[in-house]
Amino acid sequence: MIDVCFSPYLYPIYEREEQIVVIIDILRATSAICTAFSNGVEKMIPVATIEEAAVYKQQGFLVGAERNAMAIEGFDFGNSPYSYMTDKIKGQTVVITTTNGTQAIEAAKNAYAVVIGSFLNITALCNWLSQQDKSILLLCSGWKNRFNLEDTLFAGAVAEKLALNNSFKMLDGALASKYLYQQAHENPYKFLNYSSHKERLSAMGLKEDIKYCLTPDQTDVIPMLQDKYLVLK
Amino acid sequence: MIDVCFSPYLYPIYEREEQIVVIIDILRATSAICTAFSNGVEKMIPVATIEEAAVYKQQGFLVGAERNAMAIEGFDFGNSPYSYMTDKIKGQTVVITTTNGTQAIEAAKNAYAVVIGSFLNITALCNWLSQQDKSILLLCSGWKNRFNLEDTLFAGAVAEKLALNNSFKMLDGALASKYLYQQAHENPYKFLNYSSHKERLSAMGLKEDIKYCLTPDQTDVIPMLQDKYLVLK
Repeated sequence: MIDVCFSPYLYPIYEREEQIVVIIDILRATSAICTAFSNGVEKMIPVATIEEAAVYKQQGFLVGAERNAMAIEGFDFGNSPYSYMTDKIKGQTVVITTTNGTQAIEAAKNAYAVVIGSFLNITALCNWLSQQDKSILLLCSGWKNRFNLEDTLFAGAVAEKLALNNSFKMLDGALASKYLYQQAHENPYKFLNYSSHKERLSAMGLKEDIKYCLTPDQTDVIPMLQDKYLVLK
Repeated sequence: MIDVCFSPYLYPIYEREEQIVVIIDILRATSAICTAFSNGVEKMIPVATIEEAAVYKQQGFLVGAERNAMAIEGFDFGNSPYSYMTDKIKGQTVVITTTNGTQAIEAAKNAYAVVIGSFLNITALCNWLSQQDKSILLLCSGWKNRFNLEDTLFAGAVAEKLALNNSFKMLDGALASKYLYQQAHENPYKFLNYSSHKERLSAMGLKEDIKYCLTPDQTDVIPMLQDKYLVLK
């Protein structure tokens, strides 16, 4: 079974035993996390609050902290994937807190398995998912618990890929996402015109970030939650 | 501003002052309510629980009660629109409780205005909405707080109609719904193939109900919540 949950706030409704949850925050947290692992980070610690992040920072950890699309002063990174393309994270443990993505991880932390999805690792992720023989929940981080278009598109891309070679039953959220992706796939960047977060990031001069986050298959990493850490699967 | 809330459970996130909320439960509660008003009912009392409905029944009211797509024994109607095409409701007050639709009404009852939407009254509803100069929230009843495809299609049809002659800002939920409707509008019945509730109702022999509920413009009524009653606007 494949379904899509469009907000972390709705997660209790979609919780199910033995279900793999894919965390989705395309602009930009899960794209940044995939980029960090692709650039050699060893572990990441997702935390829900800036206060927790600050405690780690005082202990000497590298820390990424973002709210409302802006990097927070006094930390090492925001959530631009580009900021994680650096040798200084190699072999390190990096702490991260973001407006939406790390909240979704927190909501789903007790699931059977929690993995990180983005266009950057979509093929590797889908290959792995199709081998698991488990129900799959695609959990969109949205924007402050509201539905967003870019996470839904990615959910649709995954649903479409998984439908190709498998006999998953698709529930309504997965069907809707897949139909949207089919409309969008030739030019996702253009399809997101008018979407709130694309407008928000574009106004901040972050168009290159958006384009990068919509680029498939830049890496094979599949970050997975183990206790409080994200590690390579 | 137009947005879509895909589950009554998410309503607190989408609550906003001075907002008109359109309650949507295409298969079949809001279609049945529009049909009842179109057939001369004077007032309806939506209630959340079967227990409340039973109290009204004992007091001599006509009562519709449905759970899991089935009419409940001992009441006068379920939520098939066809059951409300009868003279016996003319001038009456009819109580109604359903799996999803009446829960959505309950969630939104304190909004600036709450109106009932279905394909059956779509043009009358959109004409009225476009004259109000208020933000509009299209509240999908879904299925037990989960996203469903048919309510989303209707939300998209409303968003598209309102976009034609107005300068509403569409938020992501409205954009996604509109794009889905654009894919579906030539044959909504076919588009809903594979959707969970169409499968559920079809298995119960209710295809005619589905077709009727997807038929636009059977009536000009706009049921509106006033205190605990639905009345004609």
